[in-house]
Amino acid sequence: MVPEPGSRRGRQNDPERRDRIIDACLDVIAESGVAGASHRRIAAAADVPLGSMTYYFDGIDELLREAFTRFGTEISERFEKRMAAASDLESAREAVVAIILRDVFGNPREHVLSHELYTLAAREPAYRALTTAWMQRSRDALERWFDPETARILDALIEGLSIHRALDDQRRDPAEVALAVARITTR
Amino acid sequence: MVPEPGSRRGRQNDPERRDRIIDACLDVIAESGVAGASHRRIAAAADVPLGSMTYYFDGIDELLREAFTRFGTEISERFEKRMAAASDLESAREAVVAIILRDVFGNPREHVLSHELYTLAAREPAYRALTTAWMQRSRDALERWFDPETARILDALIEGLSIHRALDDQRRDPAEVALAVARITTR
Repeated sequence: MVPEPGSRRGRQNDPERRDRIIDACLDVIAESGVAGASHRRIAAAADVPLGSMTYYFDGIDELLREAFTRFGTEISERFEKRMAAASDLESAREAVVAIILRDVFGNPREHVLSHELYTLAAREPAYRALTTAWMQRSRDALERWFDPETARILDALIEGLSIHRALDDQRRDPAEVALAVARITTR
Repeated sequence: MVPEPGSRRGRQNDPERRDRIIDACLDVIAESGVAGASHRRIAAAADVPLGSMTYYFDGIDELLREAFTRFGTEISERFEKRMAAASDLESAREAVVAIILRDVFGNPREHVLSHELYTLAAREPAYRALTTAWMQRSRDALERWFDPETARILDALIEGLSIHRALDDQRRDPAEVALAVARITTR
């Protein structure tokens, strides 16, 4: 296989191993945070020799970018699927409610990984390219059903309700979500 | 002075030093994250002997709880001041807009500290007592002007819009904030 321009010889040779390192990177971040995501730990989690890490990735920043891109892509795809399955405005609203109640931060791992990314992007502006792209993709999916301004506000509401429901010790009425979505999407 | 029941002898003797350690803890978290907030670093930042740390705090968890409580209290007080200064429903809505556009995550330090707390609470349920109390306080302030259900939704909207605006590389129209607040607060 001819390597693509600019790529290192060999990267194409074991894409499965490169893939596994990216997955292992997400596992390590979920477990120990971005702060604990060292080459050594990730190599151990991926079961690859430590020396191979720099062969596949130019440095920890490239690896973090790839890992969070993969994470954001998975969540975006689920988001897009929900919005694409809606058949009218009412079912589009129900899809947004389902995203908040069931998908976003639906499990502790995703909840932790999202906050790890936001913390990283809050600290280092370069990572805001990732969060910007992720938000753009959600908004595009929402724009199937809502005008761009409503889509932007709705995307922020999804974020805020998901975070608050996950970080609240008190039981919250699921009806608040449908009410919030109805208010934002009614002009 | 008579020590309060259950408190350690001496804690009352140098409240200024204890205070300084709490502030230093927030500085270290802002700089190096919760993961980097070791006794050693915090003692150095507070300019106190390393040995004195365990004298004032039972462990790093107590110190983190105190530090994030102080951080949340400062932000809550600013929030409450804005809401208390409103004189009618319209100015209450404008106060919420000002909170989003000017107060919350108004500076990189607060932005980073908020995400550090959320990440910690996402990872360790015990810290959700802090986020729950913080949200309760914001909602109470909003309930001066809005019904409890609207206050809960509005608080989540404030969160989501603040985070999305801070993590977006694209310029966002401030008018989206006023529009969002109007929609949520109009029944």
